[in-house]
Amino acid sequence: MKRLAHYLPILEWGREYNRKLLASDMLAAVIVTVMLIPQSLAYALLAGLPVEMGLYASILPLLAYGLFGSSRSLSVGPVAVVSLMTASAAGQVADTGTVGYIEAATLMALMSGMFLLLMGVLRLGFLANFLSHPVIAGFIAASGIIIAISQLKHILGIPAQGDNLMTVSASLAEGLATVSLPTLLLGVGVLAFLFWVRSGLQPLLQRWGMREYPASMLARTGPVLGVIGTSVIAWSLALGDKGVVLVGDVPGGLPPLELPELANPAWRELAVSALLISIIGFVESVSVGHTLAAKRRQRIAPNQELLGLGAANVAASVSGGYPVTGGFARSVVNFDAGAQTPAAGMFTALGIAVTALFFTSWLTYLPQATLAATIIVAVLPLIDLSILKRTWQYGRSDFAAVATTMAATLTLGVESGVACGVLASLALHLYKTSRPHMAVVGEVPGTEHFRNIDRHQVQIHQHILSLRVDESLYFANASYIEGRLYELLAERPAVKDVILMCTAVNEIDLSALETLESINLRLAESGIGFHLSEVKGPVMDTLQRTQFCQQLNGRVWLSQHQAVTTIAGEREERVSASDPLPVDQTPKPGAVAEE
Amino acid sequence: MKRLAHYLPILEWGREYNRKLLASDMLAAVIVTVMLIPQSLAYALLAGLPVEMGLYASILPLLAYGLFGSSRSLSVGPVAVVSLMTASAAGQVADTGTVGYIEAATLMALMSGMFLLLMGVLRLGFLANFLSHPVIAGFIAASGIIIAISQLKHILGIPAQGDNLMTVSASLAEGLATVSLPTLLLGVGVLAFLFWVRSGLQPLLQRWGMREYPASMLARTGPVLGVIGTSVIAWSLALGDKGVVLVGDVPGGLPPLELPELANPAWRELAVSALLISIIGFVESVSVGHTLAAKRRQRIAPNQELLGLGAANVAASVSGGYPVTGGFARSVVNFDAGAQTPAAGMFTALGIAVTALFFTSWLTYLPQATLAATIIVAVLPLIDLSILKRTWQYGRSDFAAVATTMAATLTLGVESGVACGVLASLALHLYKTSRPHMAVVGEVPGTEHFRNIDRHQVQIHQHILSLRVDESLYFANASYIEGRLYELLAERPAVKDVILMCTAVNEIDLSALETLESINLRLAESGIGFHLSEVKGPVMDTLQRTQFCQQLNGRVWLSQHQAVTTIAGEREERVSASDPLPVDQTPKPGAVAEE
Repeated sequence: MKRLAHYLPILEWGREYNRKLLASDMLAAVIVTVMLIPQSLAYALLAGLPVEMGLYASILPLLAYGLFGSSRSLSVGPVAVVSLMTASAAGQVADTGTVGYIEAATLMALMSGMFLLLMGVLRLGFLANFLSHPVIAGFIAASGIIIAISQLKHILGIPAQGDNLMTVSASLAEGLATVSLPTLLLGVGVLAFLFWVRSGLQPLLQRWGMREYPASMLARTGPVLGVIGTSVIAWSLALGDKGVVLVGDVPGGLPPLELPELANPAWRELAVSALLISIIGFVESVSVGHTLAAKRRQRIAPNQELLGLGAANVAASVSGGYPVTGGFARSVVNFDAGAQTPAAGMFTALGIAVTALFFTSWLTYLPQATLAATIIVAVLPLIDLSILKRTWQYGRSDFAAVATTMAATLTLGVESGVACGVLASLALHLYKTSRPHMAVVGEVPGTEHFRNIDRHQVQIHQHILSLRVDESLYFANASYIEGRLYELLAERPAVKDVILMCTAVNEIDLSALETLESINLRLAESGIGFHLSEVKGPVMDTLQRTQFCQQLNGRVWLSQHQAVTTIAGEREERVSASDPLPVDQTPKPGAVAEE
Repeated sequence: MKRLAHYLPILEWGREYNRKLLASDMLAAVIVTVMLIPQSLAYALLAGLPVEMGLYASILPLLAYGLFGSSRSLSVGPVAVVSLMTASAAGQVADTGTVGYIEAATLMALMSGMFLLLMGVLRLGFLANFLSHPVIAGFIAASGIIIAISQLKHILGIPAQGDNLMTVSASLAEGLATVSLPTLLLGVGVLAFLFWVRSGLQPLLQRWGMREYPASMLARTGPVLGVIGTSVIAWSLALGDKGVVLVGDVPGGLPPLELPELANPAWRELAVSALLISIIGFVESVSVGHTLAAKRRQRIAPNQELLGLGAANVAASVSGGYPVTGGFARSVVNFDAGAQTPAAGMFTALGIAVTALFFTSWLTYLPQATLAATIIVAVLPLIDLSILKRTWQYGRSDFAAVATTMAATLTLGVESGVACGVLASLALHLYKTSRPHMAVVGEVPGTEHFRNIDRHQVQIHQHILSLRVDESLYFANASYIEGRLYELLAERPAVKDVILMCTAVNEIDLSALETLESINLRLAESGIGFHLSEVKGPVMDTLQRTQFCQQLNGRVWLSQHQAVTTIAGEREERVSASDPLPVDQTPKPGAVAEE
């Protein structure tokens, strides 16, 4: 039972479920449902899919996540960035509006779900750590820009295509001559209304005497008011005949339950996209989940989240949906509205199901421009360029990673963008470790502590070179370190002993060991002693599997202080009284045979 | 002048050239020429090219390297691994024996030369460091296996194709029914002769009273004796009519000087291969160059080597050759024969040119089996599987890198093999740094030195957790470290202060800083102090660009000893006399405002 509860968190929180939690969850569900209806439709439009698929993607996936997910407040469903990525991938194998396009989107939900489940079973959640915060921030900001600009076509009432800034802008510019004035008026109007709702409605309601919480919740219903208002306008003025594109007939009822066509030959082309969607969706979801859980001192389990999101995507694929993940905006609303358990998401699913069953006919007169305006207002907060400033101030390599990610996303599209970002951040990290900082160190007077001679007032001995290498020794930096050591020695002809202070050396791989052996030989030929100090346990374990310590033309010292004191003492033929002998590196079992 | 000499090492060594050096270089050149003739022909055969291209690749490239190269003993020309890679790449765009195949090989020499020159100008020699020793060793051993097995077809006298172990073996097995007996007899005979020459001739000559040096040099002429002997046998017994494949007519004269067809549409397909050939060739050459230079206490300049090898490859491409690099066997012979300057290589080029001019008609009756035997004997020393044992004993990740490289090379071919090897070694390194070793540390009695409590007998304070993270803090490990810290705290409810000992922290990137901020907040809420100690200069510089040190719910300490002594003292409300105050992290200008 406990074992099962490990994989089915519902068995844990479900046992403590009570009327009070039920009331909180129900209230949150109502508010989230009202907010979700226009957003689900809008994101389906963004993904280039029929709007009802947005609803379908907000029913079964929420139930599935409720069973397997570990976050108590995450709200799963269609989100902006994943919708854009779906459009970008499906657009490569079929034209928007075709059956092939829809099948590609459903297939991607299935593949993405399988990838997530597989990663969950193999406990590969840690892979998400290789996406650095700056890369994610840059990617989301750039995606937001592409999304906002791509939605302008619905506001302007012109056709436009493209999945990166260039193609979208070019396509928009081309269509400018054919702008539909009624669409533009309606679109700008609803945009202005939604912006006002976002910033002005809550203060107004509070000034009217409403308390903060209901005012803030009522302000969230802005998009629904926009949907209803513009539908009424479009119906009463017959805008559909005046060039305003309406959503049109939306089939009512619940989605059909069926597996997507598995023999779809497009799966090979879509596999990489599905993997990227899985990873981006997982990272987005986990970071939202972490943030919200931390506020209530709860924790989420990344590997369990993989299972929850995987189940949600598989559920999306068998119920006519498309890839889903935990969204930021909806989860915050869910959290603020007081959701206490994943049951809130399950009740939301019920709400959306009721909508799909009974209210789809109301969507016939809904202008697409209204949905586009909803998307634009939703994604603008994502376009947070402060990450550029923050990284610029902090460090060049973080900035370079963000800039690469944003530039690649804007110019090459979302998939290449995130791939370039990850590769750039890893390459920068590797480059830095391949040219490590090295400091000549001396003793801080009155202590046993050694610091950089260029930064601190320290004592040094002319014939001892104490060198601290600030990196593990491995293949990518071994020859750089060797070269620098010889340079430093060339500048100091008086040196008779070199002590490599290994405080920052967390690993010595075979390539680096070979380099150390060659340094040892060369120093021995020149009559210079070669010592190591403060070698860590795990590194020492590895070295003891070789002959290195026996061949060493010097000793391995427990501390830099002991090394310098003893060597200086021996050279001057007067042994310091306080440290008469070199202390062995490993006083516990497995001591190294010195010299 | 000095500036120019920097790029043209010949201007440096050329000024000190004298009769004594000339004599040494001439002698070495004669010996290397005799050894090179059969090898050049054989490697051209291995590359699937007409044998004369091997000679052409041993003339102008040697002159070009002599002008630009920095190694005094490296011998440049066709080598086994690069020949195999050329065959593998050219085979993808054209069939062996066609004009397109030859053009592809020449074009690859040009592209490879351009890549090398570009990397030299941009000083990108350091990139070669990302190829670890185990990866190179595994790659060369696996290539040697493929080469040796692929040459069996010439010994057996059957046709066979393929560039990896599977395809070659399958192709050989298929042809076994059509083995040519005369070819097999001749091939096995010459193989046995060459093995005997390699191991038995020098001791025999010495037993006959010859001194070591001339005996060793004479033994190097084995392949030439094999060439002459089997040619005479093939001519006298008319073996060409009995199914033994002979080299046949080889055009005499020097190679025509002309640029390869630049409009060759295959260049896109060949570009990646050319880049890989450049890098592998460079790494092989530099490692040979380093080894030999170290023996005479000389150094080579990797970025200058890029220029030398680049010039050599461009020279190969305009004179009917194919990709070349510095070879191990020939360089050792050159070195042992007493070559003192790159002039030895230039004289060797003269020797090969004379051969091409006057002696090609002698090659008509040369059996291909002889050349194949030459290759097999030459590559067997490359198949050094001891690297597997050595890495197995040393460390699992080095072993995994070698095993991946060898398996990928044998099953997928040379190009995928080396790419998989590099990616595997980098991925393993990143994986290790993403789950760093962390040690709870305590003070070694009688010192100011802190070590792992699990390995050493140390003093600890119940309410202080001293934690040493053995890795830089960066995006890939930030959340792992956060999780581990909370686990350690959960096991130690008495802890009131956490000190992160940053001796091994060489960088804190923005993602890790955000994690530290969140740890700081959470510990503050639990009333636990959060301190850093022994933060290095460059890391402190970065932190000071942020508000982190001001927000820190604790202090930044110069040394772990001072941190523990002072905090323990304050908690017990008796301040230790020797360390009355926390010492500032940065006594020199730019001190951090603490607390």
